[in-house]
Amino acid sequence: MLDEHNIIKTLQKAFPHLSADIIGIGDDGAVIPLNERESYVVTKDLLVEDNHFRLAYFDAESLAHKALHVNLSDVAAMAAKPRFVLLGVSIPRDFKEDYLKQFLNDFGRLCLENDVQLIGGDTTASGDEFVISVTVIGQGMTQHLKFRRGARIGDIIAVAGNLGHAHLGLKALEGAFPGLEEFKMAALRPMARVREGLWMGQQKDIHTLMDLSDGLVLDLSRLSEASQVCAEIEINNLTPSKEFLQGCAKVGQDPLECMLVGGEDYGLLMTVTASAYDKIAKDFEQSFGYSLMRVGIISAGQGLRLKKDGEEVIFKYKLFSHFGEI
Amino acid sequence: MLDEHNIIKTLQKAFPHLSADIIGIGDDGAVIPLNERESYVVTKDLLVEDNHFRLAYFDAESLAHKALHVNLSDVAAMAAKPRFVLLGVSIPRDFKEDYLKQFLNDFGRLCLENDVQLIGGDTTASGDEFVISVTVIGQGMTQHLKFRRGARIGDIIAVAGNLGHAHLGLKALEGAFPGLEEFKMAALRPMARVREGLWMGQQKDIHTLMDLSDGLVLDLSRLSEASQVCAEIEINNLTPSKEFLQGCAKVGQDPLECMLVGGEDYGLLMTVTASAYDKIAKDFEQSFGYSLMRVGIISAGQGLRLKKDGEEVIFKYKLFSHFGEI
Repeated sequence: MLDEHNIIKTLQKAFPHLSADIIGIGDDGAVIPLNERESYVVTKDLLVEDNHFRLAYFDAESLAHKALHVNLSDVAAMAAKPRFVLLGVSIPRDFKEDYLKQFLNDFGRLCLENDVQLIGGDTTASGDEFVISVTVIGQGMTQHLKFRRGARIGDIIAVAGNLGHAHLGLKALEGAFPGLEEFKMAALRPMARVREGLWMGQQKDIHTLMDLSDGLVLDLSRLSEASQVCAEIEINNLTPSKEFLQGCAKVGQDPLECMLVGGEDYGLLMTVTASAYDKIAKDFEQSFGYSLMRVGIISAGQGLRLKKDGEEVIFKYKLFSHFGEI
Repeated sequence: MLDEHNIIKTLQKAFPHLSADIIGIGDDGAVIPLNERESYVVTKDLLVEDNHFRLAYFDAESLAHKALHVNLSDVAAMAAKPRFVLLGVSIPRDFKEDYLKQFLNDFGRLCLENDVQLIGGDTTASGDEFVISVTVIGQGMTQHLKFRRGARIGDIIAVAGNLGHAHLGLKALEGAFPGLEEFKMAALRPMARVREGLWMGQQKDIHTLMDLSDGLVLDLSRLSEASQVCAEIEINNLTPSKEFLQGCAKVGQDPLECMLVGGEDYGLLMTVTASAYDKIAKDFEQSFGYSLMRVGIISAGQGLRLKKDGEEVIFKYKLFSHFGEI
């Protein structure tokens, strides 16, 4: 089976002359020049029915929200400001017209609310699946843009946002569990952390930035590969809330597994100079009203390690993948 | 059933404050600012298996070619130069790995050959259909960009490219007719007319430009609507080649219907100041080695009219639509 990683590798092989220039492949967004000080950042995300969403529990507004925000999140993760949107939809011939109209209207309204301009798109027919393809173009100061490469040995790894909430919510939705609304909303309506991303762009001590779409372990592995370093997660740092633990018990999920490999949280993952971390964490909390979660440290080597009380533990979980479910 | 037109209208309704600014919606590409003299043009086209292509007769190289060229064509139709590409693919779980690798390798090579840089993309899984979502970003002199609006009464309507060839080729492929290679290639590997588009951008007497993706009648109707004029096609001007007539006879297609409503030719449709037409047509032929086809005239009013020897004739054909087949 070809996975996302293999496909990117295949494409990189097809572009031997350009690989150094292709910042975009493998990063959240691609960078194209704008002017002497600024760049555009271009993202593209496909959402496919029954893979990324099910119409059984995705109302039209939530779907419009998610389709927009997963792309806004990619721009945020580059530390740029979302400006323009293109929307492509591929619509099954027997699709419900009311749902589609609601989706389009909500998508339009959400663009306005998020101060991005819908500038184009494409509509076409599909056989069985509703497919949404969104491209967002952001604008940012070139020297503020953040990438996955650039993590330094000794950096502290931190997350702005929750871990595992969307996955718990997804399990609650899939199993039709009552309650757990906070987590269901995390799955249905993830909030792109655009203001946070722009703020992080201004912090020189934040060396890398990416968004958490496929789970902490998988995304952090990508960051460590791009930076050619080793990422160590200290499990004791992952402190779930009481509500999260109760929710996991209710739906039969292992809380730690959920936090490590659950996808679609769309928090921001970063690495920060160790000596600057406390000040950045304090400034962040003052600016945004919630705390960064410190999850680990960057060390020499490569790959990803899980540690508990400083001792390495075996990683026993299956990674999140859009090609299979955890 | 919601068609493409209704979807665009729904989106335009969702953006009442912005409608004047959204040049992109309904045009081939969307325009975003670059610098004082230049703009970027952004296109987005979805290709869906069994709607836009069938794997039964689309080899991987042809599919890569088509996925790229239909987007290059959108940029060409804005009179801009393609610069950057993003590729999204949604892959059925049981998809043939060899085909996908070939497709990705060919897509990469074709980007290089067409001097466009692949800068990013997205890969995901789909249930049954292979979906390709390409975004191309072009760059052009802002004052050279061409749109669908702006046709003037008295303008001559002309086409650079063939009419109906891709549709004849499609019918030959669908019916597995032997021979007719020229037409099959028109369907499998349409050539974006990038050089022509850039040339047209420099001709002030070319008032409108768009590419022919959905057939002359439908695309010209869109041009006349965007320009708030009437488009008249003089049927006598549509002079098919002997090979085209023979091909239509072979596959059982009405040649005139094929030329009027057959989609996916990716020629360039334009309107030109009448007094300047002869010089432009001559210069075009000298530059590109083939002739423009004069197809009609812009008149006062709205909509589209078919004329034969100056007399109006009733349009009896079903329009090309990705939501149904002619």
